[in-house]
Amino acid sequence: MALNVHHVGIAVTDLDASIESYRSLLGATVEHRETVEDQGVEAASLQVGTSRIELLCPLGPDTPVGKFLAKRGPGLHHVAFEVADLPAELERLRADGVQLIDETPRRGLFGHQVAFVHPEATGGVLAEFVAR
Amino acid sequence: MALNVHHVGIAVTDLDASIESYRSLLGATVEHRETVEDQGVEAASLQVGTSRIELLCPLGPDTPVGKFLAKRGPGLHHVAFEVADLPAELERLRADGVQLIDETPRRGLFGHQVAFVHPEATGGVLAEFVAR
Repeated sequence: MALNVHHVGIAVTDLDASIESYRSLLGATVEHRETVEDQGVEAASLQVGTSRIELLCPLGPDTPVGKFLAKRGPGLHHVAFEVADLPAELERLRADGVQLIDETPRRGLFGHQVAFVHPEATGGVLAEFVAR
Repeated sequence: MALNVHHVGIAVTDLDASIESYRSLLGATVEHRETVEDQGVEAASLQVGTSRIELLCPLGPDTPVGKFLAKRGPGLHHVAFEVADLPAELERLRADGVQLIDETPRRGLFGHQVAFVHPEATGGVLAEFVAR
């Protein structure tokens, strides 16, 4: 069961310009910035009031976010739901026949455990599960 | 300035099936369901822990969400940010040269005041501002 929406992930082509845009538009502030080689992105986590958005800029065109940008252009990329126990959630989803991209947790931003669920399972929404 | 992410909007083709899918996947519960003729949708607001997602099913193919589905398929549609004073925010955005879809607030789900910002202003993200 999900505890909350942990963040909304947004694919961008220029990280600095997007940070400035969300600062101006929403008063968003950068809480963390990190290159996650494993996911092929430079990411910035922004606080928007009490919520969070995550900007994802690909390290190259052959990365997942690079391919997303080539196909759909910049915009909403995924939504992440926080769970208390990620391995238990993945086991439950597997038992329910839900198609997973990550069968086991991997390292995400902040060093959190993350796993992605296939959009087939969620009506076209790329969903990430996160445990802190 | 935004107070939080009020909800994540998701375009769906079958509202009942999607509600059941998010109940099973996330433990989401329906807090409100309403047809908003003005926006051409039947919408369901779902609580996901302490957060909220909004499922949008078009009333017909010639509605904004119907056209979105025809072009992009089901999936993430918009993200809504809560603000304290919507008219003041719209005035501020206009002064900053931000392109708006709604120049003045209109009625959204729950009877909230809402206004959409053009995706051109937000790097491809359809952003909604909401005031309760």
